[in-house]
Amino acid sequence: MAFLLRAARWGLCPWRGYCSRVTKGALSEDFVAALKAVVGAPHISTTAAVREQHGRDESMYSCQPPDVVVWPQNVGQVGQLVALCYRQGVPILPFGTGTGLEGGVCAVQGGVCINLTHMDRIVKVNTEDFSVVVEPGVTHRALNTYLRDSGLWFPVDPGADASLCGMAATGASGTNAVRYGTMRDNVLNLDVVLPSGELLHTAGPGRHFRKSAAGYNLTGLFVGSEGTLGLITAATLRLHPVPEATVAATCAFPSVQAAVDSTVHILQAAVPVARIEFLDDVMMDACNRYSKLDYVVAPTLFLEFHGSEQTLEEQLQRAEEITKHNGASHFSWAKEAEQRSRLWAARHNAWYAAMALRPGCKGYSTDVCVPISRLPEIVVQTKEDLKASGLTGTIVGHVGDGNFHCILLVDPKDPEELHRVKAFAQQLGRHALALHGTCTGEHGIGLGKRQLLQEEVGAVGVEVMRRLKATLDPRGLMNPGKVL
Amino acid sequence: MAFLLRAARWGLCPWRGYCSRVTKGALSEDFVAALKAVVGAPHISTTAAVREQHGRDESMYSCQPPDVVVWPQNVGQVGQLVALCYRQGVPILPFGTGTGLEGGVCAVQGGVCINLTHMDRIVKVNTEDFSVVVEPGVTHRALNTYLRDSGLWFPVDPGADASLCGMAATGASGTNAVRYGTMRDNVLNLDVVLPSGELLHTAGPGRHFRKSAAGYNLTGLFVGSEGTLGLITAATLRLHPVPEATVAATCAFPSVQAAVDSTVHILQAAVPVARIEFLDDVMMDACNRYSKLDYVVAPTLFLEFHGSEQTLEEQLQRAEEITKHNGASHFSWAKEAEQRSRLWAARHNAWYAAMALRPGCKGYSTDVCVPISRLPEIVVQTKEDLKASGLTGTIVGHVGDGNFHCILLVDPKDPEELHRVKAFAQQLGRHALALHGTCTGEHGIGLGKRQLLQEEVGAVGVEVMRRLKATLDPRGLMNPGKVL
Repeated sequence: MAFLLRAARWGLCPWRGYCSRVTKGALSEDFVAALKAVVGAPHISTTAAVREQHGRDESMYSCQPPDVVVWPQNVGQVGQLVALCYRQGVPILPFGTGTGLEGGVCAVQGGVCINLTHMDRIVKVNTEDFSVVVEPGVTHRALNTYLRDSGLWFPVDPGADASLCGMAATGASGTNAVRYGTMRDNVLNLDVVLPSGELLHTAGPGRHFRKSAAGYNLTGLFVGSEGTLGLITAATLRLHPVPEATVAATCAFPSVQAAVDSTVHILQAAVPVARIEFLDDVMMDACNRYSKLDYVVAPTLFLEFHGSEQTLEEQLQRAEEITKHNGASHFSWAKEAEQRSRLWAARHNAWYAAMALRPGCKGYSTDVCVPISRLPEIVVQTKEDLKASGLTGTIVGHVGDGNFHCILLVDPKDPEELHRVKAFAQQLGRHALALHGTCTGEHGIGLGKRQLLQEEVGAVGVEVMRRLKATLDPRGLMNPGKVL
Repeated sequence: MAFLLRAARWGLCPWRGYCSRVTKGALSEDFVAALKAVVGAPHISTTAAVREQHGRDESMYSCQPPDVVVWPQNVGQVGQLVALCYRQGVPILPFGTGTGLEGGVCAVQGGVCINLTHMDRIVKVNTEDFSVVVEPGVTHRALNTYLRDSGLWFPVDPGADASLCGMAATGASGTNAVRYGTMRDNVLNLDVVLPSGELLHTAGPGRHFRKSAAGYNLTGLFVGSEGTLGLITAATLRLHPVPEATVAATCAFPSVQAAVDSTVHILQAAVPVARIEFLDDVMMDACNRYSKLDYVVAPTLFLEFHGSEQTLEEQLQRAEEITKHNGASHFSWAKEAEQRSRLWAARHNAWYAAMALRPGCKGYSTDVCVPISRLPEIVVQTKEDLKASGLTGTIVGHVGDGNFHCILLVDPKDPEELHRVKAFAQQLGRHALALHGTCTGEHGIGLGKRQLLQEEVGAVGVEVMRRLKATLDPRGLMNPGKVL
């Protein structure tokens, strides 16, 4: 270990090319011993493989590993670890499932990675109050498995089996947001370890009321703060009743405009659609090939409706009328779980289908969100820009929210192509901003969108954010280099 | 005017007994002249009647008028006024419709009241994007009248015809929150004049996207900040499609528990109820007398359902089944607007019916919110405490959110009774806190609940709020004496 620490200190590394990062200061053996004293020897690691595993997420950003990884077993240990690091001026990096998409876990200044997955209790389900308290190791799938017989579920689903506290930190959402909202709408309370090591309950200790007008909305401030203000060690979430029945549907359109118009008309008709997802022709083609399907290669909507048997029939009928009025063809639907799953297979496997377009490449997903009325023009423009850029990419969107992703395939060993992907993503972000949109609907700012954030909220907005950051994290040690 | 200013400076006042307040510093004639230069002579007043009118809201707090009232005509003037006041160390008090319930407009340290009601444009409706931009003079009724033929509406309705920006500042909600959410859920962007006079767009200039994960949630921070961090000069709000049809219903219960159980069961059955309001037996008796009705004097639920003709029938049928299963009687419903209005007359006139119990008295409304499972016990306890206190009060609740109000009748000239009302409200607040609830579901902290806020969020929570306040308002001049 001593060798490793020295290697890190000197910027040497026997394994991989991740040592070019600037560390804020190397960690002394005494300091590492102090960390070990907090969590116990089995719960700390400085091995290269472990560090490397904790320095990357699912994005195209190159791995920047922390100096040490620790696994606290409880919130008391988290508080001690954070206070210890803060006193010593060592960066603190929270880590959950590592499924982020914007480099949020990269240790750009080195430091201590706090892996929170050993804290994985579902602390309390309040069935009558439609709420649950979870520790940071609990993923949304684990929670829904646990809730199976309760009649309740947690609907926010970003695709990957992310941890719920990580989703809160990112401000995640996903396919169900059009009906059930995002993490911003579904977090009732957070336990947050502040830089001082103190524990903040954003809505007060143990509170799980549905609404409040009591003081500043601290819960809202920490949701989406990406670990830059404090470490989330528990989340109280809002649960929803499991729908009595579900119907899935798909249909193809002659144009992007027709698909988006249908979406607007469905929303205006107050059809309480649970999911409404858009896949472009390139994505559909890739899905056909990957999942051996025979969908029409055209802009396509995937819909899902939740409700009672009777209301589902009506929702489906209205959606069919509206989409057909907008020129849709091949309208099909399914009610039984297995058939629904088959109908949505293209959507469920979209990421892998895109990856299969260029085996061996990595995927990077853009994430802009615009007012829904501007969606057709930006999708059409993006498809033209894609063609002009020579990049391979598909489009999939949470079209009911105006949020869409362009999944770009990139050879991580080709710096020129990486550069082109970054340039394309920046251009798309700027285009969304010009249409009164945001550069990120659900993936966060992370490393790469800090410039876009400045353009999005303007000088005054960034200055307010900076002041908030400075007042809560005066030494700038909480997940440094992210967001601002 | 010179006399008035001198009077204010010396603590003398020829009119009323509101001069006992401590002013931070009297306003010089030069300073008032500078304010006048910004807004023009017709838009400033120092007359006692005007000042007094701006120093009180609809609460029991005694009037504490500002030194001057100004009516800016545009956001540029607001910026100049705020910068001017801030430089001179003069408190700044935003004023909308004056319909607050927690003394939020009381000028406890004197200062300049900025009445924003002359800025009353509905700036832009984005029909396809389900959003609207309003200036601070626009009330929710004015907006809904304007939207009448658009197929859209804004559902948050706190009862009084409050301004929408004031509702955002308070974090208001009301009867529709169970289905459509509170102001926290329905504000997409805010224009805020900061103490420096600079204009902040909390989600970036002109942006009206549905969701975002871009940086800290500044919109969420300013919603509910009660004018203590900045002045809201425009709000971008989320609109909803007007329901195709509406059905209203009422039924009586043998107990509070039965009424609340019904509510939980209706929510668990995923019936998308739009309103579900509870009135206790005392309130029903008062309503019968005031509106000449003949309702059963018993705990009663008032329900409203929104949807298509077909789904309404199903919603109504389920609600009837559930309530009857819980012992409900006298289930009646109505579909036509006039009949619905008659059916809900008791609920609509509840405030006036309560006032009529003791003519000449003022009303004070408590505002606790608890996890819904704790609602029966706190309502029953509150009724017992009411009896023991010798006070006159009725109970009305937004029972789907766990939020209820005890409307207390108080003789404002009887200091002993005022004291008892305050003590009762404090005790009720503490009781809610002990049940994991909040001291305010929708009225805000204002003047009187600052101690309860501390107990609610704890020492760390208050310290974080204080730091946020200090970093955005270092001189403590934005609506001083409120929230913290």
